[in-house]
Amino acid sequence: MSRQGRKLLFTPGPLNCPDEVRAAMYLDVGSREPAFIECVATIRQLLLETAGLSSGSEWCSVPMQGSGTFAIESALTTLIKKSDKLLVLENGAYGERMVTIARRAGLPVVRDQVSPTDTHDPQHVAEILANDPDISHVAMVHCETTTGILNPIATLASTVKNAGRTVIVDAMSSFGALPLGLDSGDIDCVAASANKCLEGAPGCAFIILRQNLLEQAAGNCPSLSLDLHAQWEELERTGQFRFTPPTHVVLALRQALELLRREGGPAARRSRYQENHATLLRHMKPLGFEPVLPLALQSEVITAFPYPAGEAFDFDRFCQRLEERDLIIYPGKLSNLPCFRIGTIGDISPADVERLVREIETVLKEMGLR
Amino acid sequence: MSRQGRKLLFTPGPLNCPDEVRAAMYLDVGSREPAFIECVATIRQLLLETAGLSSGSEWCSVPMQGSGTFAIESALTTLIKKSDKLLVLENGAYGERMVTIARRAGLPVVRDQVSPTDTHDPQHVAEILANDPDISHVAMVHCETTTGILNPIATLASTVKNAGRTVIVDAMSSFGALPLGLDSGDIDCVAASANKCLEGAPGCAFIILRQNLLEQAAGNCPSLSLDLHAQWEELERTGQFRFTPPTHVVLALRQALELLRREGGPAARRSRYQENHATLLRHMKPLGFEPVLPLALQSEVITAFPYPAGEAFDFDRFCQRLEERDLIIYPGKLSNLPCFRIGTIGDISPADVERLVREIETVLKEMGLR
Repeated sequence: MSRQGRKLLFTPGPLNCPDEVRAAMYLDVGSREPAFIECVATIRQLLLETAGLSSGSEWCSVPMQGSGTFAIESALTTLIKKSDKLLVLENGAYGERMVTIARRAGLPVVRDQVSPTDTHDPQHVAEILANDPDISHVAMVHCETTTGILNPIATLASTVKNAGRTVIVDAMSSFGALPLGLDSGDIDCVAASANKCLEGAPGCAFIILRQNLLEQAAGNCPSLSLDLHAQWEELERTGQFRFTPPTHVVLALRQALELLRREGGPAARRSRYQENHATLLRHMKPLGFEPVLPLALQSEVITAFPYPAGEAFDFDRFCQRLEERDLIIYPGKLSNLPCFRIGTIGDISPADVERLVREIETVLKEMGLR
Repeated sequence: MSRQGRKLLFTPGPLNCPDEVRAAMYLDVGSREPAFIECVATIRQLLLETAGLSSGSEWCSVPMQGSGTFAIESALTTLIKKSDKLLVLENGAYGERMVTIARRAGLPVVRDQVSPTDTHDPQHVAEILANDPDISHVAMVHCETTTGILNPIATLASTVKNAGRTVIVDAMSSFGALPLGLDSGDIDCVAASANKCLEGAPGCAFIILRQNLLEQAAGNCPSLSLDLHAQWEELERTGQFRFTPPTHVVLALRQALELLRREGGPAARRSRYQENHATLLRHMKPLGFEPVLPLALQSEVITAFPYPAGEAFDFDRFCQRLEERDLIIYPGKLSNLPCFRIGTIGDISPADVERLVREIETVLKEMGLR
């Protein structure tokens, strides 16, 4: 499919991959042959580099088959024991999902829930931790794609770290572009996916964490498949995944990480996404669309827009007419406010965003809404 | 990469995919758009068809992200409760893995273990079941790639079924080519992978089972990611995976299933594999290589050969010299007998097998072993 004719995905993922990333999948390799072992080693190294960490340090990266949720579950259920207690800072669907994972696994968990359009107050978090010494781990989401809100991860992580607890971050939709500050030392473990800001293919996720956390985590995980400790141990021992890796997707991830480096690393990528996002807001405004979130909280990853006010808006029809033009947008996820979402990450440019908004205008006219 | 220049994988997987299967991955699609929902529906339908089951029947198929082990774990930990008891018929690494999965999940499990070069005696299995009425489920492996042994699945399943227990089969390396007899009614649940006899890409597996087993299985699974009931429910409700699917790998699976149908279905595919296998044995014999297993037990999936007798055989060097020729073979997995394995499934032909054996002869000469 030509670059011209391709679908454009303005979603929280799966996203558009660069042509070279998809092309990297056109190769069959054995999962235990030296060429593939080298590929996995390169990826583990480039992930640390992308995170701003030096190799040979106390950090390690561990790829895991499946979606991002598989990696989050792998981290939570391997690092947290039944004698521990997890606090989840929740302001959207992905925080809620971490609570569900912990409950399912029978891990003690409490949540601090704020509205999806608010962020957590570090002072309040400090009080929760002071009042409940049983809390051993705190999990939080960097960018909640429920709304596109950017949580103040540095302040929250430092608050938790000062209280002596372990910090686990879901950086699914931010890793590779938005700064996470792993080098500050406040965050202990991050889970993310190949198919967000890294622009790889979906099917492989990964966890970056302090090695000493893993050293104490043997036998914790009730799942064999998702055991992060066992996965790490096998990778360290043999350079191989324990169970058949998605070889094509892994080859794509290496290519994606090399393209990220070539683009200039996370900061350069973030600039492009910021430009995509600014283009979106600039062109949506004259059509009457303002983001759900105040600008100060809004990330450049994804933006939620309320349905047009005072009009009967048929989102399914709207969405379908855009799909017919190979433009994919995303439904909303807020229970109290009908909205839709437009993502601005992946291998898309400001020109692609301009095209989307032009077509949105045309579709609105067709639907009698302009 | 040209067809001429490609690597040939003579392994238990990952395997060679047809060019059209790899080409199908050169497309980005949204996981919630109608075109992808239709793709998933087609796959679920074609999986039933491949299994010889009619749709709209009591059966359903459920794709699951990850490797085959993820699907096996998903089935075992969703269908079996802590008040149940699992018996595993074990004659190799994959039977053993099912025991480990059950133990990790805290499920009561017993095993009946025979040598990797033997099959289970149905009479003995009937006695175990008669003596232990607590056993509710019996799990077995169709083709153990540890040795390539083909277990007498029809007889064993019928024995278990006659004793009124639920039959779960790991058909990872056989599904899509070797007959499983799901239509006989003795088997209740099968787990397999996209990247074995189906010749799809690795990264997606699936479970085919009686729908009524799922209806009783809500809330059993301690893992959110691997919850087969929740995955099925979401697929039935929305046609979508719960969590980001490996879209490219799923597109590849649809293409693979369509190619299987075009080849003439599982029976035609099996003929090709049988021809691959016969070619392998015929040409390996003059080089002094005889299979570990007696012919009556040997499947056409993979064959284990003992190291050349009475000589210092450096397998790593042997393997490496074949790798330099883009020919990938596999190490052995028997603790008491040094051997290597050669797979004969995937998108390879008898001519490819002939080329492999010619190169094996050359390498043996180079190594001074001929």
